[in-house]
Amino acid sequence: MKKGLAFYKVGEMVDGFFLVKSSVKGTASNGKPFLTLILQDQTGDVEAKLWDSSPEDEELYAAQAIVKLSGEMGNYRGKMQLKLKAIRPATELDGVKISDFLETAPLTQEEMVETITQYIFEMKNPNIQRITRHLLKKYQNEFLEYPAAVKNHHEFVSGLAFHVVSMLNMARSFSQLYPSLDTDLLYSGIILHDLGKVIELSGPVAASYTLEGKLLGHITIMVNEIGMAAKELEIAGEEVTVLQHLVLSHHSKPEWGSPKQPLIREAEILHMIDNFDARMNMMDRALDKVQPGEFTDKQFALENRSLYKPLFHAEFAKN
Amino acid sequence: MKKGLAFYKVGEMVDGFFLVKSSVKGTASNGKPFLTLILQDQTGDVEAKLWDSSPEDEELYAAQAIVKLSGEMGNYRGKMQLKLKAIRPATELDGVKISDFLETAPLTQEEMVETITQYIFEMKNPNIQRITRHLLKKYQNEFLEYPAAVKNHHEFVSGLAFHVVSMLNMARSFSQLYPSLDTDLLYSGIILHDLGKVIELSGPVAASYTLEGKLLGHITIMVNEIGMAAKELEIAGEEVTVLQHLVLSHHSKPEWGSPKQPLIREAEILHMIDNFDARMNMMDRALDKVQPGEFTDKQFALENRSLYKPLFHAEFAKN
Amino acid sequence: MKKGLAFYKVGEMVDGFFLVKSSVKGTASNGKPFLTLILQDQTGDVEAKLWDSSPEDEELYAAQAIVKLSGEMGNYRGKMQLKLKAIRPATELDGVKISDFLETAPLTQEEMVETITQYIFEMKNPNIQRITRHLLKKYQNEFLEYPAAVKNHHEFVSGLAFHVVSMLNMARSFSQLYPSLDTDLLYSGIILHDLGKVIELSGPVAASYTLEGKLLGHITIMVNEIGMAAKELEIAGEEVTVLQHLVLSHHSKPEWGSPKQPLIREAEILHMIDNFDARMNMMDRALDKVQPGEFTDKQFALENRSLYKPLFHAEFAKN
Amino acid sequence: MKKGLAFYKVGEMVDGFFLVKSSVKGTASNGKPFLTLILQDQTGDVEAKLWDSSPEDEELYAAQAIVKLSGEMGNYRGKMQLKLKAIRPATELDGVKISDFLETAPLTQEEMVETITQYIFEMKNPNIQRITRHLLKKYQNEFLEYPAAVKNHHEFVSGLAFHVVSMLNMARSFSQLYPSLDTDLLYSGIILHDLGKVIELSGPVAASYTLEGKLLGHITIMVNEIGMAAKELEIAGEEVTVLQHLVLSHHSKPEWGSPKQPLIREAEILHMIDNFDARMNMMDRALDKVQPGEFTDKQFALENRSLYKPLFHAEFAKN
Amino acid sequence: MKKGLAFYKVGEMVDGFFLVKSSVKGTASNGKPFLTLILQDQTGDVEAKLWDSSPEDEELYAAQAIVKLSGEMGNYRGKMQLKLKAIRPATELDGVKISDFLETAPLTQEEMVETITQYIFEMKNPNIQRITRHLLKKYQNEFLEYPAAVKNHHEFVSGLAFHVVSMLNMARSFSQLYPSLDTDLLYSGIILHDLGKVIELSGPVAASYTLEGKLLGHITIMVNEIGMAAKELEIAGEEVTVLQHLVLSHHSKPEWGSPKQPLIREAEILHMIDNFDARMNMMDRALDKVQPGEFTDKQFALENRSLYKPLFHAEFAKN
Amino acid sequence: MKKGLAFYKVGEMVDGFFLVKSSVKGTASNGKPFLTLILQDQTGDVEAKLWDSSPEDEELYAAQAIVKLSGEMGNYRGKMQLKLKAIRPATELDGVKISDFLETAPLTQEEMVETITQYIFEMKNPNIQRITRHLLKKYQNEFLEYPAAVKNHHEFVSGLAFHVVSMLNMARSFSQLYPSLDTDLLYSGIILHDLGKVIELSGPVAASYTLEGKLLGHITIMVNEIGMAAKELEIAGEEVTVLQHLVLSHHSKPEWGSPKQPLIREAEILHMIDNFDARMNMMDRALDKVQPGEFTDKQFALENRSLYKPLFHAEFAKN
Repeated sequence: MKKGLAFYKVGEMVDGFFLVKSSVKGTASNGKPFLTLILQDQTGDVEAKLWDSSPEDEELYAAQAIVKLSGEMGNYRGKMQLKLKAIRPATELDGVKISDFLETAPLTQEEMVETITQYIFEMKNPNIQRITRHLLKKYQNEFLEYPAAVKNHHEFVSGLAFHVVSMLNMARSFSQLYPSLDTDLLYSGIILHDLGKVIELSGPVAASYTLEGKLLGHITIMVNEIGMAAKELEIAGEEVTVLQHLVLSHHSKPEWGSPKQPLIREAEILHMIDNFDARMNMMDRALDKVQPGEFTDKQFALENRSLYKPLFHAEFAKN
Repeated sequence: MKKGLAFYKVGEMVDGFFLVKSSVKGTASNGKPFLTLILQDQTGDVEAKLWDSSPEDEELYAAQAIVKLSGEMGNYRGKMQLKLKAIRPATELDGVKISDFLETAPLTQEEMVETITQYIFEMKNPNIQRITRHLLKKYQNEFLEYPAAVKNHHEFVSGLAFHVVSMLNMARSFSQLYPSLDTDLLYSGIILHDLGKVIELSGPVAASYTLEGKLLGHITIMVNEIGMAAKELEIAGEEVTVLQHLVLSHHSKPEWGSPKQPLIREAEILHMIDNFDARMNMMDRALDKVQPGEFTDKQFALENRSLYKPLFHAEFAKN
Repeated sequence: MKKGLAFYKVGEMVDGFFLVKSSVKGTASNGKPFLTLILQDQTGDVEAKLWDSSPEDEELYAAQAIVKLSGEMGNYRGKMQLKLKAIRPATELDGVKISDFLETAPLTQEEMVETITQYIFEMKNPNIQRITRHLLKKYQNEFLEYPAAVKNHHEFVSGLAFHVVSMLNMARSFSQLYPSLDTDLLYSGIILHDLGKVIELSGPVAASYTLEGKLLGHITIMVNEIGMAAKELEIAGEEVTVLQHLVLSHHSKPEWGSPKQPLIREAEILHMIDNFDARMNMMDRALDKVQPGEFTDKQFALENRSLYKPLFHAEFAKN
Repeated sequence: MKKGLAFYKVGEMVDGFFLVKSSVKGTASNGKPFLTLILQDQTGDVEAKLWDSSPEDEELYAAQAIVKLSGEMGNYRGKMQLKLKAIRPATELDGVKISDFLETAPLTQEEMVETITQYIFEMKNPNIQRITRHLLKKYQNEFLEYPAAVKNHHEFVSGLAFHVVSMLNMARSFSQLYPSLDTDLLYSGIILHDLGKVIELSGPVAASYTLEGKLLGHITIMVNEIGMAAKELEIAGEEVTVLQHLVLSHHSKPEWGSPKQPLIREAEILHMIDNFDARMNMMDRALDKVQPGEFTDKQFALENRSLYKPLFHAEFAKN
Repeated sequence: MKKGLAFYKVGEMVDGFFLVKSSVKGTASNGKPFLTLILQDQTGDVEAKLWDSSPEDEELYAAQAIVKLSGEMGNYRGKMQLKLKAIRPATELDGVKISDFLETAPLTQEEMVETITQYIFEMKNPNIQRITRHLLKKYQNEFLEYPAAVKNHHEFVSGLAFHVVSMLNMARSFSQLYPSLDTDLLYSGIILHDLGKVIELSGPVAASYTLEGKLLGHITIMVNEIGMAAKELEIAGEEVTVLQHLVLSHHSKPEWGSPKQPLIREAEILHMIDNFDARMNMMDRALDKVQPGEFTDKQFALENRSLYKPLFHAEFAKN
Repeated sequence: MKKGLAFYKVGEMVDGFFLVKSSVKGTASNGKPFLTLILQDQTGDVEAKLWDSSPEDEELYAAQAIVKLSGEMGNYRGKMQLKLKAIRPATELDGVKISDFLETAPLTQEEMVETITQYIFEMKNPNIQRITRHLLKKYQNEFLEYPAAVKNHHEFVSGLAFHVVSMLNMARSFSQLYPSLDTDLLYSGIILHDLGKVIELSGPVAASYTLEGKLLGHITIMVNEIGMAAKELEIAGEEVTVLQHLVLSHHSKPEWGSPKQPLIREAEILHMIDNFDARMNMMDRALDKVQPGEFTDKQFALENRSLYKPLFHAEFAKN
């Protein structure tokens, strides 16, 4: 199997197919145009400069193009940079497609749908169950394809659904240790908490923010959707307000985007499980790229920390 | 005309009818029960102790009762306290009613409705106009009676409507000086911005927070209402999202309750006009109670400041 | 079974044995001495005033005394207060002992020792295992009796050990879902993280802070203990520094008492599990005292929130 | 009429006269000297590189020089950059002068003087009137030419006076709606609040900070000036202290530069009007450069927000 | 010699003359008036209640009265309270005067004047020397009597001058270790830094804030005074601005009252010496009241810390 | 004597020997490799580019190499940059050694040892004296060579010992003015406070952080060392805990790295003296590089201030 982009060292030769993630034209200090390409595979991405680029090059190597290239991995101002030796667009004969270059969840969409459906099936409170099922069905296609975030954690195809499945499994373990929890409410909150992202973000790949996303945000969007769903399903009762509260408060603090703090036990737990799973995902992805005895890069979403992988993890620990 | 409660000094005799705002039973250090009454008229309120109270007293002098009393204004730990000499419940013959003791807006409900209707009538954008008219009509009765807040500013009967009328007049002046403003949007934002309080609060008098108020808050409630109104009126288009954004962002900062900062010029202006009118109201009410050369009490909602009324205001200024 | 102190309402008669938690002499406004007693049973505590107290009363009703009393539950300035009708010291014939009045963990010390021993037994890394076993053995008696904190969470006899057992079980569940975790390190961190409290606090009941507690704190104390243990056991290697780091960083932020943020994955997880279990404990204890449809008192350690117990929890949920 | 610099897009040809705002010599990666020029007209500015520059070039194209050039608008690392094709110094025959390239207030100095004089004329309090007139007269020339700030808002020739005129008009409107305001005090505070900038800044164009500006700041400078003026005019009385307080507190908070918060109603209003006008100015200038449906650049002084211009503003709104 | 108020324990009998620091009338729970007296001697103060007070008592025991009393030291809600047994006003025959009850600096005014004069005499820069001498002379009487603050540190008669003398001595030591310091500037800054307090505060005893104190503050007041002095003495030059800067910046941060941070080395040192001497004074005064092995009360101005006096200080250390 | 690197101006020719502080390979925009060298002498450092570098160059001009070069001082993006004209490695014949290029303390190691030994000799408390002597002896070699910090203050060879000597001298001066201070405790705290840096940092030159440094930090390391030393010396008593507290709290606040605030008078003084000496060192080093009338560069560790050197310091002041 080919080595992924994330694992090359300075000086190594790179040879293979890559997806152009972005392509920006600039002018060199000698006055000539060049392209700054971000090239990606399933493991990561790297910058490369295409010097003396022609107008045709701009078209051939635009974002979403697949290219075949060879080059040498270098370092520019402390960041990896690929020095191109040869580059050409991929052709149909090459037999490569965009999804080959996108990271994706470790479970299939079918597996994830089945798991989530089972959790909904187990719910005993019909009001909570119906609202959850209604909204999941309404946005199921997008839900199964979107990333959980544009960066930081679970930022891959189907990342949102995978994040929800992990959280549901964690909630089940958790409620076995702390039986006072209302699992109906907690499962529903988990399934709905980030569903507004399918409206906040523009799409499953290379997502940007929509106007609704910028002006309202996924939390407000989903709180509204729950209200509309309840009206459509003719459900009244505290469950509606409480579910809206779970979504509204799941960022926990005003300065993190939740105008109300969690005031329901399951709302607090939802916030903590969300945080736990996101942090595990970020830590694992960062630590996967270093060897025992090394520190990771600074992780912005982990308060800019560099994590250390202990030397003895080479020996005793599973990872 | 009788002197209002806010204007008595220590040692003066008080004699007249008052509304019991709250009544709480306690046990004195000699082991006997007593009632702590908060008595109110249109100008303010004061605490009084009814010593050695009987179970009948607890009923006669419960919250919302009207009483006739005489006593002497005193001071306990730096706060005014009325020392009761005689007290009895008011009877029908006394000819007093609750609204005699409640502070109310200086305009009638009819005047306020007329003014607001005129502003809506002037709107040129039909989407904005229809949503505004629909929601105002839906909640008009409560809107005309509710206070603008449970404390701090405009906390009187019809305070919410009066606050809106003041803001509308300010917005009109303002838009004459800065003609780039979209007055349709700004007027609509002003009319709707706090309308969610009619659901957040329990009623026009002695208001407390409802469950929806505590779990969602008036901002989220109103954003939902706009979404529902648009659906019912079959209005699509950016106006809906933008109006929701104006309401959502009118507290300006996450830590003040707005998960999104104002990203539309009129949203920023709405926030500033809201702030301006609330602060003018709080400052005027505090300064009305002191003489030139004096400082007011500390005003919690004005960052705990004591304001000074200059001596020369006795001479040159209007106030 | 007798009703616990936490469950009385205003006006109800109270009759039974209680432990005097604290006793402070004061002077009433009539110039006479009185005692302010805090009386406790396993469910909670309440204040009571003993008026016109004699010097003998001060001795009879000092802290740690057991008393038999009858009285009426009242309310003073919004806080429950017991109005005494009769009180006498308990005698040997009454057959009551201090531990009858102390809340205690729901597991026996033997059960907890067995569980923790099993977790240590499973460790594969001998350095981690030996240090953990050594320190637990050194302080086992105190560890099994101390509370986890002087207030807020697990503030009961054996609270520290019970908190550790809950965290260990949670860690096992989580490591099944997130197999990259080094359970040796995580289990050891959990067992040791608060062990310094047996030096920081004065004892298992009515704990106050020792001089070392005030000047160094339990985190620094335990980091030192790990260093000393390693020296005594002649263990060198990263495990020592990493274990010290887990304890040092388990409060997560400098302003919460950890001079270093967690830089090891298991350190971050330790912090989150600690937080999880403490918050569940606080929420459960607060919600146990209210009915569906009610809010709890403000919980200082939960950012001063009042939690809501949904009405529908009376019907569908387990609690 | 020629298109302004602010309105060119990448790839468009630029041809015309511009003012050199700054000129800095650098060394290219090929070891040769070059000049980084900032070129400006009344609408904005852009960077351009003059490669292989000679010592004569450094003199010809120094700051404050006027040049004739042609080139192509490009983009370098996300910022507009003009690629020069030809450049020459302007000559007398070209008939261009520096003020052609400087943005200036939309009112003439005469109009502004007249307006402000009228406001002073209306004052009834002679102490306030005399101090205001004295200080305005003392610094009138600079006052009429200086910008209101070195960046962010009203940073153009006569910006300070224009800002004051706008604020005075706003104050008049507001005092009609809120008649309790002391307009003498408010108008005087507005006229004097930023007058210290004529000492804090080095001049009306390309202003930098003077030593007094850096060590004392315009607020402290002006508070001193009011004290000196009062002494010279032999005015005693609270008006002096109160006027000093208005200037001292007009940034509202210690961390924004005011050691005292506003403690006079008119001081609070002065702060709010100052903020209102500055924000309207910044928002209008940012929104003027984008089309309906677009977001502006991030605005540093507006808490780094990007503002949105609604699509429906193309249709219904005035702007 | 008599024991000072600060050193009594609960239960001890108190007998002697005291100054009434404040006297406030209240109403007891039995409806009768009483006086809350704060009684003081040179070591501290204590609260006492005079029950069933008559109107004559209010006059006899008003603030600034001297009384002869006997009573027992008690404790009310954790604070010392003197239980009065007998009280009478002092008469001329008693031969006591107010200054007997006021804490005062350990140096005489003459000693302090002499020391400060010597420091001024040593200055070599005539501009700095003349301004310093001029302002000290202008306010010498008040300077020698005022406290350095209304509470926290050096809050005794002549506290301001004593604080200045301590700081000057410290500055001399310091400049011997760090010879780069400009002692002229540093000594002048020390002498002037708090001189504005003689205008900010109402007097040397029981000081409150004047209107100028509240609206401008002692820093702004003194910066103005330096400007006026320079004008009167016809001194121009950087020394004036730099001296103003030293005073302006001596609180170091905007949120502590200095709109400019220290930008001159001597300004930074002035701030640190001020802080050092104030903290030493506060710590010594707090520690003087406890025995080795004890903690002090919480010290508000020391970030609410309780300081510990080590046991071994009884043996080895000087204190 | 040769001019130091810190004192060259743009355009001046540089000629001489320098130490390569760091050397990083890059790729120029023409695709060719180059080296970015940081060259240093005892006064400062400067960047230089070696274009078209060969693999041999990378070895010859690696970090720690000494080079002979000539070039011209230039400016690149506002930072000094040396434009190389010629460069060669130094040979043995040149007679230069690394220590010629390293800034070093102004006292010899012998002088510093002697001074510190004298301070320890003066201690009267044997517990404090023995622990101090033991730890100083254990780490004496490193202590005499390490810098006090990797940047900001005393970042030169023997900087740590020199910082300690300065602080001890300051402590002696201060304790003469404030005789309540326990000099044994204060001297010991000064000697030990940063000694953990010899374990936290990798070495005396070009220091980086060790694993213990990153995971525990020098404060925790030293607190442990004191505990171990006491055990080894069989010293028990409050002195051990109090000394650990002095080290633990010397950064004063949790957010600055001290989990406990100073609770002992000498701990507070230790913090202030540490701060005093570090700030004097930073200010002197920054001001040494500018002329009277100029501002320094922004000093990161002085809250990013630019300090001003007054013009009159050219005339009157010593510096």
